[in-house]
Amino acid sequence: MIVKNRLLNFKDKVIYQDDDYFSFSLDSLLLANFVTINYRFKNIIDLCSGNAVIPMLLTYRTKANIVGVEVQNEIVNLANMSILENGLGNKIKIDKLNVKDVGLVYDCGFFDVVTCNPPYFKYKSDSLINDNIVKTIARHEILINFDDIVKSCSYLVKNGGYVAFVHRPDRFVEIIDTMRKYGITPKRVRFVYPKKGRDANILLVEGIKNGNEGLKILAPLFVYDDDGNYDSEIIKMFGDG
Amino acid sequence: MIVKNRLLNFKDKVIYQDDDYFSFSLDSLLLANFVTINYRFKNIIDLCSGNAVIPMLLTYRTKANIVGVEVQNEIVNLANMSILENGLGNKIKIDKLNVKDVGLVYDCGFFDVVTCNPPYFKYKSDSLINDNIVKTIARHEILINFDDIVKSCSYLVKNGGYVAFVHRPDRFVEIIDTMRKYGITPKRVRFVYPKKGRDANILLVEGIKNGNEGLKILAPLFVYDDDGNYDSEIIKMFGDG
Repeated sequence: MIVKNRLLNFKDKVIYQDDDYFSFSLDSLLLANFVTINYRFKNIIDLCSGNAVIPMLLTYRTKANIVGVEVQNEIVNLANMSILENGLGNKIKIDKLNVKDVGLVYDCGFFDVVTCNPPYFKYKSDSLINDNIVKTIARHEILINFDDIVKSCSYLVKNGGYVAFVHRPDRFVEIIDTMRKYGITPKRVRFVYPKKGRDANILLVEGIKNGNEGLKILAPLFVYDDDGNYDSEIIKMFGDG
Repeated sequence: MIVKNRLLNFKDKVIYQDDDYFSFSLDSLLLANFVTINYRFKNIIDLCSGNAVIPMLLTYRTKANIVGVEVQNEIVNLANMSILENGLGNKIKIDKLNVKDVGLVYDCGFFDVVTCNPPYFKYKSDSLINDNIVKTIARHEILINFDDIVKSCSYLVKNGGYVAFVHRPDRFVEIIDTMRKYGITPKRVRFVYPKKGRDANILLVEGIKNGNEGLKILAPLFVYDDDGNYDSEIIKMFGDG
């Protein structure tokens, strides 16, 4: 069922979701906050953009033009409904496209920044069981895998530009390898923990196209505090509403 | 000047240090607490062992025989003074040896666990300036570099055995690469932060010789709390004295 929600605490924005198959997650919120943004950036692209929550959140941080790429029709429709209703049509454009095919549409090195909240799970033949196909495609590497995605990121981003992902910590080594394979030097990593004393369950990582080596492990981020409430840093990200 | 200190809060142990060139650090304490130990382990080796603080701390966690390898005479002497005075001569043996040469002395795959707090800094021609040679060798990759060390670790540890390092987070990518180069699969990582909101400044990493893939990022560890006191977890590591 399609539902219209307020976009977090940003009072002036709404977001359309479909709880049958696609709701944006905390992960996207974290990525939109994590990625490096500066005032000189002119063009940003968000891959596997879903219902465009990352592009919409980024409009609070930048005046750049933002493109979202999403392959599934049903989700592109949700994204466009939100963008229209929020009056963001002059800032955000959604292209329905497999991320593998970005070379057919965009120029090499056109973007200052690439963000992506990709499908997290490797595809297994039983991945479809007990799930619907739209949701399965959003979460599993069926239409594209991480190697394909990073290859496209490397094509899209300019030399010295930024590429940022949110992903799972258990794939960290593979992620670092794949970024370097395509010339994106890992520069900043932030691990997110559900609460104190627990293993990390979300990884934020940013690299620079042909950047110098030297990795920083940023301060840890906790989602919940000891009392089970959102941590103050998370609440701050939710907006100023 | 050689000074005799109590070994942290472990009331029954002392440690000899020389504040002109070698004092053990928090890093060694953290590594001795971090490394996997179980009751079946029979033989443990600590490379770049310094004044043997890691072997001495490990005697609280294991009944295994422990070998320490240290190349510098001055530091071997300190280690042996402490071991003798603490009555640990039947548990810990220090061998004066370059870690590159372990193949001349020990059998391949003899050890259940290898620990190492290696020289952290790459050697530059001006590294010696304003420093003494013993301290410089302990801290810089002059007599050995990280690649050499991991090669020796891989030789010493048995299949399925554990190799644990403390190092600097800015060398994390290189460390992961080098471990895998020598067949040690990274399994557990813990980042240590000076306090909340700061970047990590210490890395703890453990791998398994020919282990299955799958990395865990353990809960972050803070050295100081918001008031500038040692964090409670650090205090707990200091011992029960």
